Amino acid sequence: MNNNYLFPVYKQINIEFEYGKGSSLYDKKSNKYIDFTSGIGVNSLGHAHPKVIKTINKQANKLIHLSNIYSIKVQKECAKKIVKLSTYEKMKCFFCNSGAEANEAAIKFIRKYAYLNEIKNHKIITINNSFHGRTLTTLKATAQEDKQKGFGPFTDEFIYAKDIEDIKNKIDENTVAVMLELVQGEGGINAFDKKQIQTLAKELKNKKILLAIDEVQTGVYRTGEFLASNYYEIKPDIITLAKGLAGGLPIGVMMSDIEDVFTLGNHGSTFGGNPLCTKVALEVLTILEKRYKTKKLQKTVEIFQKELDKFYLKNKEYFVCKTGIGLMLGLKLKDENNLSKVFEEALKHKLLVLKSGKDIIRFLPSLLILEKEIKEGFRKLQKSIIKLNNKDKK
Amino acid sequence: MNNNYLFPVYKQINIEFEYGKGSSLYDKKSNKYIDFTSGIGVNSLGHAHPKVIKTINKQANKLIHLSNIYSIKVQKECAKKIVKLSTYEKMKCFFCNSGAEANEAAIKFIRKYAYLNEIKNHKIITINNSFHGRTLTTLKATAQEDKQKGFGPFTDEFIYAKDIEDIKNKIDENTVAVMLELVQGEGGINAFDKKQIQTLAKELKNKKILLAIDEVQTGVYRTGEFLASNYYEIKPDIITLAKGLAGGLPIGVMMSDIEDVFTLGNHGSTFGGNPLCTKVALEVLTILEKRYKTKKLQKTVEIFQKELDKFYLKNKEYFVCKTGIGLMLGLKLKDENNLSKVFEEALKHKLLVLKSGKDIIRFLPSLLILEKEIKEGFRKLQKSIIKLNNKDKK
Repeated sequence: MNNNYLFPVYKQINIEFEYGKGSSLYDKKSNKYIDFTSGIGVNSLGHAHPKVIKTINKQANKLIHLSNIYSIKVQKECAKKIVKLSTYEKMKCFFCNSGAEANEAAIKFIRKYAYLNEIKNHKIITINNSFHGRTLTTLKATAQEDKQKGFGPFTDEFIYAKDIEDIKNKIDENTVAVMLELVQGEGGINAFDKKQIQTLAKELKNKKILLAIDEVQTGVYRTGEFLASNYYEIKPDIITLAKGLAGGLPIGVMMSDIEDVFTLGNHGSTFGGNPLCTKVALEVLTILEKRYKTKKLQKTVEIFQKELDKFYLKNKEYFVCKTGIGLMLGLKLKDENNLSKVFEEALKHKLLVLKSGKDIIRFLPSLLILEKEIKEGFRKLQKSIIKLNNKDKK
Repeated sequence: MNNNYLFPVYKQINIEFEYGKGSSLYDKKSNKYIDFTSGIGVNSLGHAHPKVIKTINKQANKLIHLSNIYSIKVQKECAKKIVKLSTYEKMKCFFCNSGAEANEAAIKFIRKYAYLNEIKNHKIITINNSFHGRTLTTLKATAQEDKQKGFGPFTDEFIYAKDIEDIKNKIDENTVAVMLELVQGEGGINAFDKKQIQTLAKELKNKKILLAIDEVQTGVYRTGEFLASNYYEIKPDIITLAKGLAGGLPIGVMMSDIEDVFTLGNHGSTFGGNPLCTKVALEVLTILEKRYKTKKLQKTVEIFQKELDKFYLKNKEYFVCKTGIGLMLGLKLKDENNLSKVFEEALKHKLLVLKSGKDIIRFLPSLLILEKEIKEGFRKLQKSIIKLNNKDKK
């Protein structure tokens, strides 16, 4: 089917998947693809997880959507579960429908905080190659100026630091917050140094500057811990979640433990926190919490990383290094011209991988991916590389 | 359950609904409430519609979510259906997750248009008491300054007109677009005059100023026609949809027929256009299209409006007038102090209605509401008014 009725904003591969099961996706001819992408980290439990399907069916039969003018029990339960799992006891949640909306809520929260604290000309520092969303304000927070071209006017509230080290050079009396991803998802699976982040967190606390961590991609066990913030052992002031939270359904969350900033009428969402999405999120969290506690999640991480290690060591001539943590991983290519080639060759061998930045092959598999699926995927990746290699020699 | 884990941004009624069926909602003690709100126009087919449930179940079993880097067949089918129903043949769609995101996409589109046409210092005119969303940019587009307090800095791109007539006073060489709701949903069920809107549309066309119609609440047959724009017999340059489109699931759409504005990489959404939400939207549209063609929708509108008329004529001493069109209706109270009283009394009689502006009782029933549900609802409303009357006499 042609694309006559859609704006051509996506660079799309012309494959139409019909159905999925676990970490396999099938096209209409039932060709099987191994999925190392999980919809860019969204299908955290893989495709067609029986408990996700059952929960959707059960809740859809009862109640899909309700306005937030009424008390929504499952929304409260879901918020409680998120806060408990975060370990940051006094946090509260705001539910919305996407990562961009979660970051919008975070920026609104920061602005209101600045207003209450009478910080004029306030500035938010973000990091080069960050990605915080596609709404106008989150696009400006995204320190990638090529993506912003033609979409101004923007406010001059965002200041870009080159890296974590550079943040301290950018701080002045107008700085109200620093906002960052601990592992930059779109910007090259760039996992910041743990010590450096901990030092930054301490310095910001001393200077009473807010630390907002965008966990839209890193959150919900993607790094092996519930939050990347847990992995980095820091306590942010503001956290945002989205992608993997509801097993594929649209959802976003902004959380903070700062009181009296968001008050009555300060924010809202029509769909946000609806019974269906929060019920499924609660189920996803319950399943992943159990896998975490029984060390099954860590086992999956180990197996995937071991296979990635083996692949990397075997094919070191093409790669600079491995990157990332947990199940948010990448391989940095020596030659960035090879990125599209690997992507396309993998596709020919029916393996789905992602690109990140200019030279990273990105892996965001389901958190429940099976050992046999992992091995099958890396066998396919090996074939993709071999062919690429031969082509390059021509 | 307490609200310890949620920000106190909503003024909430302490009723927890467990399940719904058609235009009835039930609490945990199975007390039945008649729903004249449909989740603020979201549950367009009522609660637990069998075909919506069936479609959700079937699609969830196959595929919930897929990245937009792959071609998504049902997203294309859904876009085609929306464009066909709109009657604006050359339009294209962008899918996102909410009304706010749809309006963000519209404003991005307008900005890119201004950029391509070298319009510097460009301005977008919106109307007093409008509501376009809660993200920072749509909040600034929302011409209600009390909602913006504490959330700046904003750009100076938005100009507020007092009303439709005042738009022409606000137009200058920097004006690139006018953005408005044809029936203001949050701002008092304020349906603008058809002739006035048609004249405006003509004038804007002559001046090459874009007309963006926010149909987040008015769209998807809410007014009796697929779009309020169809009812007003105008052809906007940009249209946004959301609330009632996917029977309760989070979805948003921005559409336009202006070519070469949104190009590769200009916008994007992770969840937007996912197979589950677009499949359900397609089913909702198919059901509503059939009801429209067989005149069943118009019959429902007539019955609801007839009962509202009867109620209004019987209780004229309390009301200034009826407002709205289709199934987006209101009653304007003579005394705005009565608004909360009516709302609360209705609740005691197990009828759910909404407030809009300062003095409007708002009705946004399911588009499939049955005659007996309508009559039962108005009987309850009559009781709520009688009690209110007695109280006032004290």
